[in-house]
Amino acid sequence: MTPTPIGLAGLGTIARKQHLPALAATPALRLVAIADPAGGLDGLPAYPDIDALLAAEPEIAALTLCTPPQGRFDQAAAAIRAGRHVMLEKPPGPSVSEVETLAALARARGVTLFATWHSRAAAAVEEARRRLAQATIRAVEITWKEDVRRWHPGQDWIWQPGGLGVFDPGINALSVVTQILPERLHPMAAVLEVPANRQTPIAAQIRMRTASGVPVGADFDWRQTGPQTWEIRVLCDGPEIVLSDGGATLSVGGQTQIAAGDAEYPRLYARFAELIAAGASEVDLAPLQLVADIFLLGERRLVEAFDG
Amino acid sequence: MTPTPIGLAGLGTIARKQHLPALAATPALRLVAIADPAGGLDGLPAYPDIDALLAAEPEIAALTLCTPPQGRFDQAAAAIRAGRHVMLEKPPGPSVSEVETLAALARARGVTLFATWHSRAAAAVEEARRRLAQATIRAVEITWKEDVRRWHPGQDWIWQPGGLGVFDPGINALSVVTQILPERLHPMAAVLEVPANRQTPIAAQIRMRTASGVPVGADFDWRQTGPQTWEIRVLCDGPEIVLSDGGATLSVGGQTQIAAGDAEYPRLYARFAELIAAGASEVDLAPLQLVADIFLLGERRLVEAFDG
Repeated sequence: MTPTPIGLAGLGTIARKQHLPALAATPALRLVAIADPAGGLDGLPAYPDIDALLAAEPEIAALTLCTPPQGRFDQAAAAIRAGRHVMLEKPPGPSVSEVETLAALARARGVTLFATWHSRAAAAVEEARRRLAQATIRAVEITWKEDVRRWHPGQDWIWQPGGLGVFDPGINALSVVTQILPERLHPMAAVLEVPANRQTPIAAQIRMRTASGVPVGADFDWRQTGPQTWEIRVLCDGPEIVLSDGGATLSVGGQTQIAAGDAEYPRLYARFAELIAAGASEVDLAPLQLVADIFLLGERRLVEAFDG
Repeated sequence: MTPTPIGLAGLGTIARKQHLPALAATPALRLVAIADPAGGLDGLPAYPDIDALLAAEPEIAALTLCTPPQGRFDQAAAAIRAGRHVMLEKPPGPSVSEVETLAALARARGVTLFATWHSRAAAAVEEARRRLAQATIRAVEITWKEDVRRWHPGQDWIWQPGGLGVFDPGINALSVVTQILPERLHPMAAVLEVPANRQTPIAAQIRMRTASGVPVGADFDWRQTGPQTWEIRVLCDGPEIVLSDGGATLSVGGQTQIAAGDAEYPRLYARFAELIAAGASEVDLAPLQLVADIFLLGERRLVEAFDG
């Protein structure tokens, strides 16, 4: 089968670290052009923006957007209107309404839109989902604690309006928990700790519930030095089920069942190719919806200023 | 036709001022019981809470909830699980996720869920929608300015997390604009002015756009003494279309077309009866979605403390 020619927009850290190697490992797709104002890659045509790429490369069937979510609507809409399939790095946009509009545009134009959640592609997530579908769940505790200075050194956009703050990693946890739990979730209450000199939270404590009332708690903190924690513990009738390392490791009753390396992005691109072949879209906005809802009903508390 | 027996929960200001007269004017429904911890109405059985009402009154087919949105999930879920139809005063809940879960429960149980937006039932809204379906729209400007001390004297819940602040009236504007515009909307940027001693905004300036890029601005302010303004101006090719008085008045090119009194709530109850008869639900969460998205991406600015 001839690989589908694809363009990549936004050649930043996440693109270089994850998207380029994953694309190279995906036989169904072939990277043929870059759109980035700062230039491209050796041997590939590069364009300053997506409009230029779309105009110059009519044979490119698909685009993957690794640009910041804030400016992405016009880029994605232009690609969709030009009849190209679109894949969105997480978070898929700065608001739920905006991505729902993109999904409606993609439906109308008959192209694939894939709003990715890379943590859902972590190695142990599917097995956790399968086990929890059979379990009687009593409570869920999410702990997502990392050092913002280590993962986002000197980055300002995460602190600006729309930048999500600690929900930038936290939404990964929410993308996994909404995938593995058999019931829908909604937030009951939240405390958002916002540095006095910033717009977005550096920490959050969230109380959620499933439709039938199972409590789901989340503790997000961006001030954790030393060991980093990305863990979801599920108390069941029977042995406790624990997803750790962001979804790569699964233990059941203290016994490790799966402990795998990182292959999230190759799985995302394989899925994108499948969706294109099937003429389907995948746009599940539940994780972003939870974040928007938590911002809507959360209590804000000012905490110590943060200089990163 | 025998009227459907209905119970009302939450006998507060909005219930007494709007819901009771509207129910009395709706032949298809008959109010038969009240659930409110503070007691009921002369001549009707009253229960301290919804669970007591549901248990004691198996023949009540429907419930209308006028309780504060924060505690409403358990009430609505209990009624739905007991097989009763449910109508929700606006806003339908404290989060989009929560009301989506209620909608899923109602579908599964085969009962009607009606998330009302009373301003959509204002006299001139349908005619505005009809005209705008034919128009080429260039820009939309929403001005929603009122005096919080006049409309919410001494009320604390509006300033607490989940209380919406100036979006409590502002969501009425958003419910109308999402009804009359032929295209979907999403927010681009917003400034939320939050009193230093409160959690929710007292004013907001919002920039939104339609799917095709038409700018939609909104200016919400709760500090307006003197004349109160609830107006949506639509600049079109051709005469300007202006909805004012919260949707009761329509003028086209400066000529008044409709100027009617308030009959919003009787229309809502007539619609609820229709939905029950048709076995259908109506849950359009676009207005609450916009508010959640605006809280998600809006910039917060602290302003003068408010003592109301």
